[in-house]
Amino acid sequence: MVASIPQQRQGFGILREMSTRWIDNDAFGHMNNAVHFQFFDTIVNRTLADLGTDQLPDDPTRFVVVETGCRYLAEIRYPDRVTLGLRVAHLGRSSVRYDLAMFREDEDQAAAVGYLIHVNTSRATGRPLAIPEGLHAALAVLHGDPKP
Amino acid sequence: MVASIPQQRQGFGILREMSTRWIDNDAFGHMNNAVHFQFFDTIVNRTLADLGTDQLPDDPTRFVVVETGCRYLAEIRYPDRVTLGLRVAHLGRSSVRYDLAMFREDEDQAAAVGYLIHVNTSRATGRPLAIPEGLHAALAVLHGDPKP
Amino acid sequence: MVASIPQQRQGFGILREMSTRWIDNDAFGHMNNAVHFQFFDTIVNRTLADLGTDQLPDDPTRFVVVETGCRYLAEIRYPDRVTLGLRVAHLGRSSVRYDLAMFREDEDQAAAVGYLIHVNTSRATGRPLAIPEGLHAALAVLHGDPKP
Amino acid sequence: MVASIPQQRQGFGILREMSTRWIDNDAFGHMNNAVHFQFFDTIVNRTLADLGTDQLPDDPTRFVVVETGCRYLAEIRYPDRVTLGLRVAHLGRSSVRYDLAMFREDEDQAAAVGYLIHVNTSRATGRPLAIPEGLHAALAVLHGDPKP
Repeated sequence: MVASIPQQRQGFGILREMSTRWIDNDAFGHMNNAVHFQFFDTIVNRTLADLGTDQLPDDPTRFVVVETGCRYLAEIRYPDRVTLGLRVAHLGRSSVRYDLAMFREDEDQAAAVGYLIHVNTSRATGRPLAIPEGLHAALAVLHGDPKP
Repeated sequence: MVASIPQQRQGFGILREMSTRWIDNDAFGHMNNAVHFQFFDTIVNRTLADLGTDQLPDDPTRFVVVETGCRYLAEIRYPDRVTLGLRVAHLGRSSVRYDLAMFREDEDQAAAVGYLIHVNTSRATGRPLAIPEGLHAALAVLHGDPKP
Repeated sequence: MVASIPQQRQGFGILREMSTRWIDNDAFGHMNNAVHFQFFDTIVNRTLADLGTDQLPDDPTRFVVVETGCRYLAEIRYPDRVTLGLRVAHLGRSSVRYDLAMFREDEDQAAAVGYLIHVNTSRATGRPLAIPEGLHAALAVLHGDPKP
Repeated sequence: MVASIPQQRQGFGILREMSTRWIDNDAFGHMNNAVHFQFFDTIVNRTLADLGTDQLPDDPTRFVVVETGCRYLAEIRYPDRVTLGLRVAHLGRSSVRYDLAMFREDEDQAAAVGYLIHVNTSRATGRPLAIPEGLHAALAVLHGDPKP
């Protein structure tokens, strides 16, 4: 699935800059592979919040991550400033797959690409639930972007 | 790739217990999806160390992660004790793919499965290097295990 | 406050072993100073859980950390196995101060000592609340231990 | 020591904005107490880098953290943007104590204050070394700032 993810900024409708931390570098002096997922998680939740779905602990529904992956194309290291890219790659009734990328400084070629699959669930039962209509429509718009 | 990973303990030649931390739980009260990769990373590096390859920062060669992924099958939450499983799924000249799993407490069905692809590289040039003969032979033994 | 914390295992009534992770080591190849607090946090919450106070997100009361500190006496590095020590150093009406220590492998001299001050609060208002009588009594027993 | 740390932005000669991550929030839905130290660590290392001391793993000298602490004054939670403040509170021959603070969004009252004591050491022996003259002079200038 990773092969189909865009590797340039223009492939992503949403781009957001984030800061790295000294602790992100591991004993090899570069960002540890587990840290990329902290950024992926953040851009996904931030996008949902921007669409009006805050993902608060007490909400009766929540998006749960069922699968995620990352391909590392180049080393990232603190103090690099990074930009996260997100696009909606697939939109189902209760699930959504996000394509993700991480760009170093002002580079246009991704240093890492990945994906994350979310399923909307009932907090009480853990069972899948249809994504609410308004959010589904907003995600569908993102799905269409960026125009090729 | 995730579909072929075993989901029971018997599928893994190496099993190692690890402890969870309060901070592993996110705002949803369960282990955040990025944390699983901290465990995967640890079992892989621990296995290499047990095979005599300590992965010290000053070593002239290092294994670099080029791809990783995880499928989340059930929630894990601190204070769960977890057991990590590892097997060698593919062994190339300079690369190795590990299949990984995470088991809660004494459960036999994995709560998460994943994989990690390592490439042996020169620290100086970043270019792939053949895995040293002794280590390659040791990984080949793991590749054969567990016997079906 | 750090000067009064015991530096040997016998100074702590509660001792619990935990595992380190590859990512705990930073670019200097040793446990990053922020990681020690993940362990401190865990031994404190684990002790509360063992005393019957699970600290679940939905509970009407919660212990909030108001101050914490650590003195680093020796380097710890993955793959060290660590043992956390805890004693109740001060017990007030709504607050409790824990003395903490971290021991490497089987060493008796602490590699790090610290403290954490908890205040019991109302989840709704954030205001301090008296520690429930049963828990207060249990913490008082810990306060007395270990006997000199 | 925490009592003497300024709690307003004007108390700090260096201020730097950083981004929070979804994973920073723990099961209580606010930034876990251990995370603040990731930010403190970052502003300190960033300041050293800005003064020409990059703290690379291979350097013959390194600053090692010997003590750190934090007082939590108000909850911080992702997606808060935070600003870190730093001033040099004490400057010795081989050690430096930084006063630190963390501000939420555009607030002028700190949500957390802390400190970190660094000792310059030989990488080979771990023994304290005098801070190099140029860096010592640069830190001395920071020590004087901000003017009251």
